[in-house]
Amino acid sequence: MEPKSTAETIVKQLEDAWNGADGAAFAEPFASDADFVNIRGELHTGRQAIAAGHQGIFDSIYRGSEVRYSVIQARELDDDAILAHIDATLNVPSGPMAGEINALASIVLVGDGDEPRIAAFHNTVVAGA
Amino acid sequence: MEPKSTAETIVKQLEDAWNGADGAAFAEPFASDADFVNIRGELHTGRQAIAAGHQGIFDSIYRGSEVRYSVIQARELDDDAILAHIDATLNVPSGPMAGEINALASIVLVGDGDEPRIAAFHNTVVAGA
Repeated sequence: MEPKSTAETIVKQLEDAWNGADGAAFAEPFASDADFVNIRGELHTGRQAIAAGHQGIFDSIYRGSEVRYSVIQARELDDDAILAHIDATLNVPSGPMAGEINALASIVLVGDGDEPRIAAFHNTVVAGA
Repeated sequence: MEPKSTAETIVKQLEDAWNGADGAAFAEPFASDADFVNIRGELHTGRQAIAAGHQGIFDSIYRGSEVRYSVIQARELDDDAILAHIDATLNVPSGPMAGEINALASIVLVGDGDEPRIAAFHNTVVAGA
């Protein structure tokens, strides 16, 4: 697994799923037991919880939103795991979160055979951005 | 490495260092090339940057503060890496951040011989806590 291109392939899947407002597709690159920490500091565990949580925000506060992800850096932690940092820019057209939100995410990818999956995702809003 | 006790040993070092306002001691359990994302969504890379950044906040906005860490969960990602989630409660006596701040951190520990070190740390304030 070349770290940066591997991470870019995965985050493109996330981006397409977000912009299609498809919670199940968003969760698809995650491991079944993945851990997700959102910008509110809430921990969700498991692909199904990640799918349901995202479908919930796609259908409410983030309805019609568009996200752009960019891989800042990526490196191997060991033979089986990659750590990457992602810049996220979200544009929300209306509602209580309307406007542009910039966030920084860490993701950890762990190989599952040839297929790396997201084992951990942690997101923080960039202050003052 | 038993995941939870390994994580608990490491976060106790962080807690003691924070409460002693010692930036170098705080950075000591980190790998030399560790990545740290703080609650403002700022990425700092390298043990020296982590030490200097923490000494800066220990001497200013978080002067006299006390932190308590608790390991919520920990698991092996593969043979060499552990993922843990940490509950952090910070009490700041005075200044612009005065009061209690609750945060949720993810840490990734990677074995360096027998000695696990923090390869990645990512922190988010818990909203509404």
